[in-house]
Amino acid sequence: MKACVLFSGGKDSSLCAIILKNLGYEVELITINFGVLDSYKYAQETAKILNLPHKVVYLGDTPLLNNCKNIILKDGFPSNGIQYLHKQVLEILSDSYSVIADGVRRDDRVPKLTHGEVQSLEMRKNIEYLSPLMGFGHKTIRHLINEHFIISEKESEDLLKSDYETEIRELLRIEGKNPLDYFPKHIQSRVIGLKKHTITHI
Amino acid sequence: MKACVLFSGGKDSSLCAIILKNLGYEVELITINFGVLDSYKYAQETAKILNLPHKVVYLGDTPLLNNCKNIILKDGFPSNGIQYLHKQVLEILSDSYSVIADGVRRDDRVPKLTHGEVQSLEMRKNIEYLSPLMGFGHKTIRHLINEHFIISEKESEDLLKSDYETEIRELLRIEGKNPLDYFPKHIQSRVIGLKKHTITHI
Repeated sequence: MKACVLFSGGKDSSLCAIILKNLGYEVELITINFGVLDSYKYAQETAKILNLPHKVVYLGDTPLLNNCKNIILKDGFPSNGIQYLHKQVLEILSDSYSVIADGVRRDDRVPKLTHGEVQSLEMRKNIEYLSPLMGFGHKTIRHLINEHFIISEKESEDLLKSDYETEIRELLRIEGKNPLDYFPKHIQSRVIGLKKHTITHI
Repeated sequence: MKACVLFSGGKDSSLCAIILKNLGYEVELITINFGVLDSYKYAQETAKILNLPHKVVYLGDTPLLNNCKNIILKDGFPSNGIQYLHKQVLEILSDSYSVIADGVRRDDRVPKLTHGEVQSLEMRKNIEYLSPLMGFGHKTIRHLINEHFIISEKESEDLLKSDYETEIRELLRIEGKNPLDYFPKHIQSRVIGLKKHTITHI
């Protein structure tokens, strides 16, 4: 069965992809891009490392990123904007894919759907929504990442990824805002290689 | 890394074991037994099919099953009793294992720990608690079961498993009660074989 995995090139979505691949899914990695930056190329690189097919879904013609940015500007912090964006992206992908997965983890706060929202999405759109990391805490995820991936870690200002945040930051910059006023500094990571035994796994 | 998987021989705990095995864990299947029935033998059979090491942990010297049965008798339905029992079992196993997993699913109501209870268990006992099926809905689980296992399905009265319910039912019978007055009829299932491609996976 085919599964579309929302993919940023980061460790969580990479781990999600590996779990589903090992379970027998025909995984297609999907990176959302809004046309602000060509940041999808980082996910393309990681997709090659994972040896999984990758597709960029362009949503630059929708008002989603702009709406998200406005929510963040109004709130002064990014949670609600990111949550809005992720939910809208899932709605859109649900029209084209019947199995959609993301790398949302048990201890994440956003983006995260409530049990009711998940059931609503699945029933309205007749899809399956999978969050394979939902049963793992941060300590377990850290162990699994170290077990399977070689990663590059840098401050969020210095490491570009293919996630929502990278384009939102750029959009804020274009409007003369300082992204650091809205996104607190944090460590970003990208998968740059697989550990040997993981290569044989896939 | 070693992971202890709470194992009934059913499809959920079998799927949980396979996911963790594929992620590189050294899986040890653990079946709890309270000495009311030798029902652990069904899990032993399935463990052989999965080709994973299996251990029976005897808790017949504790008041747990009796307490659980009393809760069920008082309530007239099994949810709170099962929830109590599962939480107590996790507390006990946490003293011996540092990674503990179960087959609890996203759409299960009990046994299920809240996020706060999970964090409390992990921090107090310095363990990792894994529920690898927590990110999958019932439709997805059904697909994965069909993909990996050959199962036997029967009414709960006719199919004995190595889960809590089997011994609780017997304990009720011993006390002259009819288990059907407390546990509604439902379909039970046991893993009796692996699909070919799954064998090569493990």
